[in-house]
Amino acid sequence: MHNNNPFLVVLFVAASFYRGSDAAASFCVGDLTRQPTPSGYPCKNPENVTVDDFVFTEFVNGNTSNTNKASAVPGFVQQFPGLNGLGLAVARADIEPGGAIPLHSHPAATEMIYVAEGSITAGFISGASNVVYVKKLNKGEVMVFPRGLFHFQVNTGKEHAVGIASFSDSEPGVQLVSLAIFGNDFPSFLVEKTTSIDEAEVKKLKALLGGSG
Amino acid sequence: MHNNNPFLVVLFVAASFYRGSDAAASFCVGDLTRQPTPSGYPCKNPENVTVDDFVFTEFVNGNTSNTNKASAVPGFVQQFPGLNGLGLAVARADIEPGGAIPLHSHPAATEMIYVAEGSITAGFISGASNVVYVKKLNKGEVMVFPRGLFHFQVNTGKEHAVGIASFSDSEPGVQLVSLAIFGNDFPSFLVEKTTSIDEAEVKKLKALLGGSG
Amino acid sequence: MHNNNPFLVVLFVAASFYRGSDAAASFCVGDLTRQPTPSGYPCKNPENVTVDDFVFTEFVNGNTSNTNKASAVPGFVQQFPGLNGLGLAVARADIEPGGAIPLHSHPAATEMIYVAEGSITAGFISGASNVVYVKKLNKGEVMVFPRGLFHFQVNTGKEHAVGIASFSDSEPGVQLVSLAIFGNDFPSFLVEKTTSIDEAEVKKLKALLGGSG
Amino acid sequence: MHNNNPFLVVLFVAASFYRGSDAAASFCVGDLTRQPTPSGYPCKNPENVTVDDFVFTEFVNGNTSNTNKASAVPGFVQQFPGLNGLGLAVARADIEPGGAIPLHSHPAATEMIYVAEGSITAGFISGASNVVYVKKLNKGEVMVFPRGLFHFQVNTGKEHAVGIASFSDSEPGVQLVSLAIFGNDFPSFLVEKTTSIDEAEVKKLKALLGGSG
Amino acid sequence: MHNNNPFLVVLFVAASFYRGSDAAASFCVGDLTRQPTPSGYPCKNPENVTVDDFVFTEFVNGNTSNTNKASAVPGFVQQFPGLNGLGLAVARADIEPGGAIPLHSHPAATEMIYVAEGSITAGFISGASNVVYVKKLNKGEVMVFPRGLFHFQVNTGKEHAVGIASFSDSEPGVQLVSLAIFGNDFPSFLVEKTTSIDEAEVKKLKALLGGSG
Amino acid sequence: MHNNNPFLVVLFVAASFYRGSDAAASFCVGDLTRQPTPSGYPCKNPENVTVDDFVFTEFVNGNTSNTNKASAVPGFVQQFPGLNGLGLAVARADIEPGGAIPLHSHPAATEMIYVAEGSITAGFISGASNVVYVKKLNKGEVMVFPRGLFHFQVNTGKEHAVGIASFSDSEPGVQLVSLAIFGNDFPSFLVEKTTSIDEAEVKKLKALLGGSG
Repeated sequence: MHNNNPFLVVLFVAASFYRGSDAAASFCVGDLTRQPTPSGYPCKNPENVTVDDFVFTEFVNGNTSNTNKASAVPGFVQQFPGLNGLGLAVARADIEPGGAIPLHSHPAATEMIYVAEGSITAGFISGASNVVYVKKLNKGEVMVFPRGLFHFQVNTGKEHAVGIASFSDSEPGVQLVSLAIFGNDFPSFLVEKTTSIDEAEVKKLKALLGGSG
Repeated sequence: MHNNNPFLVVLFVAASFYRGSDAAASFCVGDLTRQPTPSGYPCKNPENVTVDDFVFTEFVNGNTSNTNKASAVPGFVQQFPGLNGLGLAVARADIEPGGAIPLHSHPAATEMIYVAEGSITAGFISGASNVVYVKKLNKGEVMVFPRGLFHFQVNTGKEHAVGIASFSDSEPGVQLVSLAIFGNDFPSFLVEKTTSIDEAEVKKLKALLGGSG
Repeated sequence: MHNNNPFLVVLFVAASFYRGSDAAASFCVGDLTRQPTPSGYPCKNPENVTVDDFVFTEFVNGNTSNTNKASAVPGFVQQFPGLNGLGLAVARADIEPGGAIPLHSHPAATEMIYVAEGSITAGFISGASNVVYVKKLNKGEVMVFPRGLFHFQVNTGKEHAVGIASFSDSEPGVQLVSLAIFGNDFPSFLVEKTTSIDEAEVKKLKALLGGSG
Repeated sequence: MHNNNPFLVVLFVAASFYRGSDAAASFCVGDLTRQPTPSGYPCKNPENVTVDDFVFTEFVNGNTSNTNKASAVPGFVQQFPGLNGLGLAVARADIEPGGAIPLHSHPAATEMIYVAEGSITAGFISGASNVVYVKKLNKGEVMVFPRGLFHFQVNTGKEHAVGIASFSDSEPGVQLVSLAIFGNDFPSFLVEKTTSIDEAEVKKLKALLGGSG
Repeated sequence: MHNNNPFLVVLFVAASFYRGSDAAASFCVGDLTRQPTPSGYPCKNPENVTVDDFVFTEFVNGNTSNTNKASAVPGFVQQFPGLNGLGLAVARADIEPGGAIPLHSHPAATEMIYVAEGSITAGFISGASNVVYVKKLNKGEVMVFPRGLFHFQVNTGKEHAVGIASFSDSEPGVQLVSLAIFGNDFPSFLVEKTTSIDEAEVKKLKALLGGSG
Repeated sequence: MHNNNPFLVVLFVAASFYRGSDAAASFCVGDLTRQPTPSGYPCKNPENVTVDDFVFTEFVNGNTSNTNKASAVPGFVQQFPGLNGLGLAVARADIEPGGAIPLHSHPAATEMIYVAEGSITAGFISGASNVVYVKKLNKGEVMVFPRGLFHFQVNTGKEHAVGIASFSDSEPGVQLVSLAIFGNDFPSFLVEKTTSIDEAEVKKLKALLGGSG
């Protein structure tokens, strides 16, 4: 019977030389129990991979009961191991009217945001020339923030807003401007000298954002 | 006055050496009037760049009045030139109940889909081992289809469904399986020999999908 | 004596700081006993590397006693660990007159085939525009199949044909179109809906290619 | 005569097929008169390339007569076209005692600084966890600032300091934190909302750094 | 009629947004009349692309009537424009008994050689540790020479030998060791100082290989 | 209290999902106790990372009491683990008057050298066309040697010279031309055949450089 199967021999070769290899499966689900390398996590044994490794279901409605009136939930490789090595990540931002996702950058990735609900005023600042590109985005519109540049999202509308962000790396990283400057033990005299922000403001923001020094 | 500006000298240097250079601005909006290179389009002169180059507003409700009961609207670099060189693209899929985005692959990119409305049964087939990974995704869930592998999206629910797809390349390309085989002048005897599909079915599908030969 | 050796000091530095490091040797032979990462396998200890890690000798005359009248023998990183991290792989195809390497794609690599014996009619299908590029190749000719696109090789001549394929990745992967659709448990109603192939043909091909569902 | 030249035939082939191609020369000096692409500038005709394209001689002693008491002179691809496509750039920083290169990031590159004169207190802030890594570097020491992260250099010593920086991209870009926020028309209410810096300080810094809005 | 075509709407979208774009076709045949960029040549207009752009037919039997008793014919992007941007190139080496492809490296690529006729003694030298990996390859065997390392091919057998080389870049470049040192105007005192080869030998080799200075 | 902290929620999310992940910190300090992969070493646990991982202090004045009158001290990833995955490395060259860093190449990297003391006559040889680009560099000048090409540095001045080299890879590798040919067991008849250097000179250089065979 099987002699009539035109693909059998090729199939046999394929099946035997690929056994046990997840690279051969053309994906590499991250084994999060091990230390990563610069290219990502070691691959999980493909025999233990299921469809759930490729699906992310944790986008709950974020808790926006905070002064920012905003939340961000990441679906990066640590939460969504099927992304390992594939050059994409996802996140959901919820912003109440008057709320904001603070100014930040992603050191390793470009971001693109899709407005799923409400409207979002978003922008980024170009390198060197410091041009501000800002636009109010309506539901269904998309904006791109080129890799490494400062950007922000603010809800200047009257409804709850939801943005779905995608990134060009499975671990885009994040650097929140004010937290990076004021939310740690960055010595105040160095902050003042390297930002021109005055001493009183530095102290005030360190107190506000949990910093010291 | 300006002597009091602590950033002036650095600023001057930055402003002068970057003048007229969009690479310096840390982006490269594609000049679509010119031929692309393997890395993308030549950069548009940054003096002519506006925020609208970074915003995509063309996600209209797709026309699903067709046998597929589905439509796909791309926001690739050709439609959204701010993506040039940044390793991301976007698309919107609309699928009516019983409709489908046919089996296809993106030769140059991983895809990730977010379900914005309704539910979508989606899946992909691994390389070599031919395992089918399929799952019904509810609103707010995300699935990743590793680069180059066959995948599909079907609406097995009762409501209109909308998926927002992002890709790991600004020009992901697309290869629709049935159109690639039957929707052109691929000689029938070669189709039969390289797919095992029989002559009658090949002729029928060529007729259905606009192919010849 | 050694004082006369003009390279001794530099040599000493080189030898000492590189000891035990295969990255320093400018190669990274894959240790196939360990799980790979997205960039390939961990490097084998260079003290255990021999010239045989860089040589592949397993290109036997493939067994073409099957309905396809063809065979394909891979020399990918799993068979040829010296390729690890170097962006190349190799394979040998044997095709009898009337035989075929079925329609397939490599999700992660461009392929180039050199006709070593006989003649091969080969082709690929472009993305989106679905143009078929097909040509009969004589001994000594080479054809390239751009990454991720469907392609095939058929022997339309009267002699045994041999093709030597090289790939732009040490693990190019493979997706055989008919096996991916019919040689697994891909549910028939999803196959029909996403390919337009009718139910009877789906059932027939599933039976032929070992599929179910 | 030339029949005795063992390399002649190979040479002839090499010379003929490479004529007029700078890619063949294994470099691609940037033609700065043309618009760049995402991978860099088009290559200058190799017949017009001289050794001076590969040499950068513009590291004058920077003018530090400003409130920052510092200067930075770039040797990026726009100043040093031989770097085009090669993944490296260079810069010289001069810092007087008490002076500082302000907090900044390079969106597309890692930086490494070598202290050529004096001493430099340098540091960077990690992503997400906001850890400050800071160290006083003496002459001859080197520090690396991973790509995209905020970093700074301050002269806390008593002598003029010189640092030679190299970058992992021929156009690393730069984003100076305070200039990006205060040195442009970034609307004050958005600055306040996205940084938590208060209105009075925003106004003060906008005035200081040449901003408006 | 067309209302029955399940792919029509998707097809229409695909056909219209891709028109005139070769990136969309998932390849970028090089337009050799224009200057390349670091990523390759600008793409030829796809309307002018034919199957012959993807086929290389110039592997004639090389002329080995020279002291090397060898020839090498390249199929790099300049000869085979369909390779543009795809990360592969090809070459054919013919070596008579006692002949040799001289010691050389490819600055930008790994090489893999398949022995198509006769036998070839091939080898490469590792970086830093200077280990020589050498092996006599029989017909049908393959050896890999990791990127940038010195390697050679010699015919120590009794028959004409043919090797088919593939490379991990469409323009691998080549640096022939003796020609790079002796076949140009590299000043003799610098050759002696940087290689330890003595003056008489330098002069002799410069005379032999067409050098001066 | 903390309810007043506008960044708290975002901060909490960031802190929790990044805990224990060095990829999230946007760096990956190499754990040198483990075998590397093609992309570098596995990341050290970030809890054990200190600022000293990012600082290199081993640039002692090299010992130039040798016939070369030169020394080279590397700061590659093996000596400077903070570079892991970041695409940069550093080295210090000391050259006495009349001394030389011998002709060599870096298989995996472009090099750029900054003259920190004295003057250095440096040069490289282009691929295929074998053009010698040579220039005397004064203190403060920089030269780039494109990836994989032969280059050298000679002190033709009267003072001790120091060069600081940076590289486009954290493990650039090195291949010293004369050591690769004469400083090992590369069989003499193969050296002669593949370089045209005569037997007597090969024997002499093998003796000088510690080779055999």
